[in-house]
Amino acid sequence: MTVRVGVIGTGMIGQDHIRRITRVLSGGAVVAVTDADTGRAQQAAARLPDATVLPSGRDLIGDSRVDAVLVTSWAQTHEEHVLAAIEAGKPVFCEKPLARTAEACGRIIDAEMATGRRLVQVGFMRRYDAAYNALKAVLDDGGIGAPLLMHCAHRNPSAPAYDFTTDMVVSDSAVHEIDLVRWLFGEEVAATSILKPRRSTRTGDGLHDPLIVLLEMASGVLVDVEVFINAGYGYDIRGEIVGEGGTVALADGEAVAVKRDGRRSARVPADWRERFGRAFDAELQDWLKAVAAGRPAGPSSWDGYAAAVVTESCLEALRTGHRTAVSLRERPGFYAKAH
Amino acid sequence: MTVRVGVIGTGMIGQDHIRRITRVLSGGAVVAVTDADTGRAQQAAARLPDATVLPSGRDLIGDSRVDAVLVTSWAQTHEEHVLAAIEAGKPVFCEKPLARTAEACGRIIDAEMATGRRLVQVGFMRRYDAAYNALKAVLDDGGIGAPLLMHCAHRNPSAPAYDFTTDMVVSDSAVHEIDLVRWLFGEEVAATSILKPRRSTRTGDGLHDPLIVLLEMASGVLVDVEVFINAGYGYDIRGEIVGEGGTVALADGEAVAVKRDGRRSARVPADWRERFGRAFDAELQDWLKAVAAGRPAGPSSWDGYAAAVVTESCLEALRTGHRTAVSLRERPGFYAKAH
Amino acid sequence: MTVRVGVIGTGMIGQDHIRRITRVLSGGAVVAVTDADTGRAQQAAARLPDATVLPSGRDLIGDSRVDAVLVTSWAQTHEEHVLAAIEAGKPVFCEKPLARTAEACGRIIDAEMATGRRLVQVGFMRRYDAAYNALKAVLDDGGIGAPLLMHCAHRNPSAPAYDFTTDMVVSDSAVHEIDLVRWLFGEEVAATSILKPRRSTRTGDGLHDPLIVLLEMASGVLVDVEVFINAGYGYDIRGEIVGEGGTVALADGEAVAVKRDGRRSARVPADWRERFGRAFDAELQDWLKAVAAGRPAGPSSWDGYAAAVVTESCLEALRTGHRTAVSLRERPGFYAKAH
Amino acid sequence: MTVRVGVIGTGMIGQDHIRRITRVLSGGAVVAVTDADTGRAQQAAARLPDATVLPSGRDLIGDSRVDAVLVTSWAQTHEEHVLAAIEAGKPVFCEKPLARTAEACGRIIDAEMATGRRLVQVGFMRRYDAAYNALKAVLDDGGIGAPLLMHCAHRNPSAPAYDFTTDMVVSDSAVHEIDLVRWLFGEEVAATSILKPRRSTRTGDGLHDPLIVLLEMASGVLVDVEVFINAGYGYDIRGEIVGEGGTVALADGEAVAVKRDGRRSARVPADWRERFGRAFDAELQDWLKAVAAGRPAGPSSWDGYAAAVVTESCLEALRTGHRTAVSLRERPGFYAKAH
Repeated sequence: MTVRVGVIGTGMIGQDHIRRITRVLSGGAVVAVTDADTGRAQQAAARLPDATVLPSGRDLIGDSRVDAVLVTSWAQTHEEHVLAAIEAGKPVFCEKPLARTAEACGRIIDAEMATGRRLVQVGFMRRYDAAYNALKAVLDDGGIGAPLLMHCAHRNPSAPAYDFTTDMVVSDSAVHEIDLVRWLFGEEVAATSILKPRRSTRTGDGLHDPLIVLLEMASGVLVDVEVFINAGYGYDIRGEIVGEGGTVALADGEAVAVKRDGRRSARVPADWRERFGRAFDAELQDWLKAVAAGRPAGPSSWDGYAAAVVTESCLEALRTGHRTAVSLRERPGFYAKAH
Repeated sequence: MTVRVGVIGTGMIGQDHIRRITRVLSGGAVVAVTDADTGRAQQAAARLPDATVLPSGRDLIGDSRVDAVLVTSWAQTHEEHVLAAIEAGKPVFCEKPLARTAEACGRIIDAEMATGRRLVQVGFMRRYDAAYNALKAVLDDGGIGAPLLMHCAHRNPSAPAYDFTTDMVVSDSAVHEIDLVRWLFGEEVAATSILKPRRSTRTGDGLHDPLIVLLEMASGVLVDVEVFINAGYGYDIRGEIVGEGGTVALADGEAVAVKRDGRRSARVPADWRERFGRAFDAELQDWLKAVAAGRPAGPSSWDGYAAAVVTESCLEALRTGHRTAVSLRERPGFYAKAH
Repeated sequence: MTVRVGVIGTGMIGQDHIRRITRVLSGGAVVAVTDADTGRAQQAAARLPDATVLPSGRDLIGDSRVDAVLVTSWAQTHEEHVLAAIEAGKPVFCEKPLARTAEACGRIIDAEMATGRRLVQVGFMRRYDAAYNALKAVLDDGGIGAPLLMHCAHRNPSAPAYDFTTDMVVSDSAVHEIDLVRWLFGEEVAATSILKPRRSTRTGDGLHDPLIVLLEMASGVLVDVEVFINAGYGYDIRGEIVGEGGTVALADGEAVAVKRDGRRSARVPADWRERFGRAFDAELQDWLKAVAAGRPAGPSSWDGYAAAVVTESCLEALRTGHRTAVSLRERPGFYAKAH
Repeated sequence: MTVRVGVIGTGMIGQDHIRRITRVLSGGAVVAVTDADTGRAQQAAARLPDATVLPSGRDLIGDSRVDAVLVTSWAQTHEEHVLAAIEAGKPVFCEKPLARTAEACGRIIDAEMATGRRLVQVGFMRRYDAAYNALKAVLDDGGIGAPLLMHCAHRNPSAPAYDFTTDMVVSDSAVHEIDLVRWLFGEEVAATSILKPRRSTRTGDGLHDPLIVLLEMASGVLVDVEVFINAGYGYDIRGEIVGEGGTVALADGEAVAVKRDGRRSARVPADWRERFGRAFDAELQDWLKAVAAGRPAGPSSWDGYAAAVVTESCLEALRTGHRTAVSLRERPGFYAKAH
């Protein structure tokens, strides 16, 4: 069975997912697209064997040819499209964030629970990365004992936009680690703090870069995340879990090593595509399989909600300079097994 | 466009390629299968949405629903099926070896040239491995100067069969490096020798394990290949090219590192599936794209022929204990650009 | 010229330094020893070719055969012996801490300055470690741009004593990083904080283990130090400096790698002797040369004082749970170039 | 007790050993020097606290102030000085080669045995390298099972002299591996061969560079040694032993790793001083201790002889192009335990 996908938003990420479904993965076909910029939607459709351009997300969601919806539009519109897909009873994959606020995420949870079945998957692709999965396997096997600490680094070569702000360091970058540690440790974040190291002179005015984001898990595990947007040298994602009896860490994963001019060297990934391209593939393949099987999987609305609450806590910590508790609503049994 | 594939041979490798086309890759569908063991073919078809079981390779190749043929049958039958596909004018992917002898490979070359177009791709999947491609990129960029030497190791945890023989060390294992170095250095092998180190006591009677296979390239580049079938500890593929100004080597490619009990450690792949699974995916995806585009790509009949001639040279060197020259027919312009 | 050394304190570290001077290094000889436990002093002397046992530190310092004094006694007595050596005008090497309190260190500074010449070296041996020196060289060469952050880990396999306390995590362990970062960055620590991750269950009652010690340098460079006394798996010292354009980190420094049983592995040092043995050699060799040359070198009384002040700040941060500013007296010109 | 050393030959290596004894090691003093170039000897003595210049090796060996002799003169004169030291009953350390020919080494063996006690140590310093010792420890512990193969590489950045010849690749460079594998495997070399890869264009006319030297041990273990004199990028020494159940290899031993400009990199040693400086220290310290204790240790005359015989075998293999058997005299019980 081929899952017929409708794509809302044909910008960079939307086009990348369309390419993925069409040319890389198995079991899916893009049959409809829409975009606020109609011309862009038409260009995207023109490259596909058999796709219709529809005037709006609502039209696309309602179209009988569309089995499942992929939301890759501007973040402000996520809530609207996800709620519409839920209303139509169609599975929906939504790029992060699930919605602009924790409150809006809560509305999506309520709507989804009202239908009585899981329909939403949120695009936290790190859960599909082979190295993170190997990390989790070691942790879960008990090989390093109970976890106590985790050190992370999240380094981009440069800010994705000129007007990238300090708030976006949290909401666009650290949010990946926020979801990641919830998944790795199987528990919620209880409190957050932000530390401000010396600021790089290579950043824009509105950006304090790098930051250290501290996440305290419910069990007391303490996670420190260095987020450095203008790290310059490459895209470098690091993580080390320290347990009572040992540690497990992401390695540098060198494919080949060159020796010349007095040095042994290997490549650092240039960007997130190089580092996480396979994870994006696996994420979307998993979604297509889950949709075809009628069994939900992957990060849920609850995960999208929890990430939003923790993000808001971090932003308050950033504003106030103080440690900030995280206050989540009670987790419904409906979302008992996130993954 | 979906390429409709007929599969001849539904043993382990055939089933793996069927799974790949059906559940992993884009652009292909398995529409027909055949096997000397009809029950096995029926089982394979039963797991597919829409596939017919046909009584023979000839029937399958002749069936109008089949756009392209995948030969994963017993090696003795490769020549027959590949020639039939050529005769039918259908693209054919043949697992290595292309045929049992160099002479038979020559007949395939003649038949393919007679049709005036490239139809055959041979399953040398290492050319699709990301790490080998990174190695080749460094070499081709001139980063290490002119190549002089290459050291390879090809280690399996254990012999794939009880009756694995010393000849099979060359024909089944070293043949991968034989094709690889032709591709890496863009030139033919000119002579071969075999060295016999101390023999492992953990092997069967008919097997001298490990061996060193020496391949002298036309330019004088010397390649030594340790082939160790019962290496015990894992599946370990190594390669280092030494150039006039530097070296480039496959690295261990660690995903995660564990520290416990006084040691830092990382996983060695357990088998060829773990090490080369992605390369098999990429190889077959590339074939599907090439078939759809009507543009041949990948290892050609010439590559299958050259590998067979070099293999025969190695087997003679093994028998005689002497360095043995490799004698290839002249390369037709038809095969001017192998890749 | 041979430097004739008198050793005050013949416990474990004293004996190790005696062995070093006698059997490993060049240019020194131990000619006198003393210890609160006279029997232990006599045993130490009996293993030496030509050493006298003297009844007290004061006698040893006053003895005309003694050119220079090595203080390896109980920390409570350091101040007394160092002041006596200064009074006698003899060079003195004092194991850390220089004295029990910052105030006492201040008295030593005053006494040393009153003599008009540098006489004191403090035993911060990490400054002599080859890997840390390589780290500093990269930093100083500007290869990674201006430093912004440093991540450290200081992991022991187990607590050195049953009654090791949380305070000692700072005063005995983190004090090494306190001196180290002052030396690496060439500036003082301005404030400290302590974070308490989830506590290991493998520790004694009086010990919260691990801790995160945060050190804010005067320039804003932020250093986080994980100190983990019961890390279990080995002695693991890590450090990574993050600069505006790159990073430099201590590597694992593997001597040999073993592949067996599905894993590639290498040794983690078992203890500080294995990791820092060479640094201790280099430190004491440097002191002997400096004494022979009459030119002071190495960590000074000022370094001992600054480490004491920062340690006291950390202990207050630990008690109060708050960030604590570090208040140093003005640095005298006398100590203008510490190293 | 201080060993009073007389040094014959104050060229580069002689001066380096003098520096080592005087400024780095414990338990030795250089009391006499001699050199064919008297001015050079005088300069060396002038830098020492208390050393006499003597007119000849014979005078130096006969001088009653000299306890032990260090031979670092031109290789042609080694035999003469070593025999004279044996005759005088004085311990002698001789840089490699022990003598110019295997026959001459045999005369030294005879002379030493006639005295009834071990007096000679040969300067094969790799036996004192920490990494090689770790390699041997893994092998000897049985961790990788019975050894079958060893791969070595011995790469210099450039030829040490303009007129470095192909013969010298064996006699000056590969000789280190010849001794090394005898020591590692505890057995003799039984046969040798030489392979000639493509020649680097960056070498002098008289030099075929690189070479592969094959050493067959008595047990059948096969060792391949790539010797590359003009490798360009650094001084790189590699070794991997392949056993029935695993492998052990020298690792790159990185001290620090830098990330910048898209790459992670670490230093390759610039020359043999950087790579083996510690081994030279340990070798000479061990000799001083052995002399002081009156107990011989380290590589013996037998080791010097065996290395000379294997070297001559390799040179014949180079001349003839054929595998050449190694023919050693019977090993006297006198040299039963070399190390």
